[in-house]
Amino acid sequence: MSHTIIGGALPAIPWEEKKNKNDVIWRYSGNPIIGWNPIPKAARIFNSAVVPFEDGFAGVFRADQKNGRATLFAGLSKDAISWEIFPDPIAWVDENGNPNPTSYAYDPRVVKIDDTYYIVWCDDMRGASIGLGRTKDFKTFVRMPNPFMPYNRNGVLFPRKINGKYMILSRPSDSGHTPFGNIYISESPDLIHWGNHRYVMGSGGNGWWQSTKIGAGPVPIETKEGWLLFYHGVTTTCNGFVYSFGAALLDLDNPSKVLYRTRDYLLTPEKEYETVGFVPNVVFPCAALFDAPTGRIAIYYGAADTYTAIAFTQVDELIDYIKNNSEVF
Amino acid sequence: MSHTIIGGALPAIPWEEKKNKNDVIWRYSGNPIIGWNPIPKAARIFNSAVVPFEDGFAGVFRADQKNGRATLFAGLSKDAISWEIFPDPIAWVDENGNPNPTSYAYDPRVVKIDDTYYIVWCDDMRGASIGLGRTKDFKTFVRMPNPFMPYNRNGVLFPRKINGKYMILSRPSDSGHTPFGNIYISESPDLIHWGNHRYVMGSGGNGWWQSTKIGAGPVPIETKEGWLLFYHGVTTTCNGFVYSFGAALLDLDNPSKVLYRTRDYLLTPEKEYETVGFVPNVVFPCAALFDAPTGRIAIYYGAADTYTAIAFTQVDELIDYIKNNSEVF
Repeated sequence: MSHTIIGGALPAIPWEEKKNKNDVIWRYSGNPIIGWNPIPKAARIFNSAVVPFEDGFAGVFRADQKNGRATLFAGLSKDAISWEIFPDPIAWVDENGNPNPTSYAYDPRVVKIDDTYYIVWCDDMRGASIGLGRTKDFKTFVRMPNPFMPYNRNGVLFPRKINGKYMILSRPSDSGHTPFGNIYISESPDLIHWGNHRYVMGSGGNGWWQSTKIGAGPVPIETKEGWLLFYHGVTTTCNGFVYSFGAALLDLDNPSKVLYRTRDYLLTPEKEYETVGFVPNVVFPCAALFDAPTGRIAIYYGAADTYTAIAFTQVDELIDYIKNNSEVF
Repeated sequence: MSHTIIGGALPAIPWEEKKNKNDVIWRYSGNPIIGWNPIPKAARIFNSAVVPFEDGFAGVFRADQKNGRATLFAGLSKDAISWEIFPDPIAWVDENGNPNPTSYAYDPRVVKIDDTYYIVWCDDMRGASIGLGRTKDFKTFVRMPNPFMPYNRNGVLFPRKINGKYMILSRPSDSGHTPFGNIYISESPDLIHWGNHRYVMGSGGNGWWQSTKIGAGPVPIETKEGWLLFYHGVTTTCNGFVYSFGAALLDLDNPSKVLYRTRDYLLTPEKEYETVGFVPNVVFPCAALFDAPTGRIAIYYGAADTYTAIAFTQVDELIDYIKNNSEVF
């Protein structure tokens, strides 16, 4: 059998059938899966990453503590819906096992390459930059050198080397809330030194939901039609930013090349848990699980910088939609 | 004979004795050496780089054309004071010799490493980033991949590898006039891939002239006392920025470590060619020539984004001054 997604089976992927046959993407009926004050040390858990791990799932969570500081926590789950979040933040160590703490850390993405899980997050380097670390067991977390200097956010590693190089997407930013933003790609022979930076895609076009800035979301999913990249797009209203998300297909061998890209958003804040919270009107995808045989995809997204939620899609229907509603500019 | 500067002799270095024995730095009496409309295609030449070349000197010049666009021009000189600027902008080519033009380009620094001259400048990559190129003859200029993504300015390569790695200073910036700015250092095995980014030094301290931002100036000069780095510092007045410059000594083996740093500026806009022009109140050093046997240093600086000027100093007197007037924070 030849699947559209180039990847493994994950029969335990969270799933619900859609209720409306015209939906390309639909929300989990149990949303949000993580609510206010989920653990004693965190007020809100959102914009978080989950991956298959051992006989279940592991996660790295953006947990804003009650002092307001964004911090990463790890956790485990059997079903990827009900989570045991560990009570204390990730205790980063350096290559020698000595403590190497972060100042703040947020919006993690996690990807397995070979036998190692790499975490990419927004890190403090006297300004927002891209942090990078690794773990094999979700107990010991080793911090690596930051791939980039400030100001940068939304770093996302590809799940394998392309033409012999590790590849990362990122979104050069400013020192504040950044009223602009395009996605770039960079490559590395060793995950330490990065270069050959190229522009991938930017804000704008006829889709006003992505008029202010965009940023890569979950780790790209390899498909026969290209790298499937969910990405967030932001528009600016009189009362602030609204974060939606769409998707693009990038060329498999040269992912700086955009093949297709949604002109319209796939998901925009509509539900109460998306429109009301610490930051109203935000849906922000940071992870996706997939099951290649069925083409099922479960997208994990932060809602209103307060909640964690899931949306579902099926890869063939999604790719048809992207192709038929594409605007590349 | 053991010199303070670790480098060669340059008997032809421009030089004038100081008139006031208390001066640590003094201006050339013939300033500015390049005035308004120096060539048909440029309105103003400033913030430019000069190096010894063959039996004279070569330069890469920031030339703002009459359409306002910043462009790089090359030129030659016998005495490093009177310059023949070539009539057309540098025609960058790629590794295969095909045209690879820049959009805009400004504030070049030039350094010779082995038998090659590398040019680092502020380049357009849908936002200000660091450009990198090379030449051996100042006729053919090969553009290399940009070391960094936007937004970054004031990239300065060290003149040799340190601990086996090429090293570059840069100043992460924003998309506008950047009301902040600290100096970082990055390393590379190949001049293509860059990593191990570290903070070097920032704005602030008791020297208000450097309260808003700072940025590396000329290529660091290797001395027995450390890497001598001239750098610009900016303060913000009710009518805009004022650019002065000072100097620091960085550890020879670990140049992310600041040993000494001038609390007071060395030079600040005072003269008419520094205080009046396209951008009033700017002195901006981009290059320095030195003669190791005498310790003479000639600093090339842009004045008021309009003129090119020279200032002189003597390395032993300068290092004494830096050490005795240092504030590291």
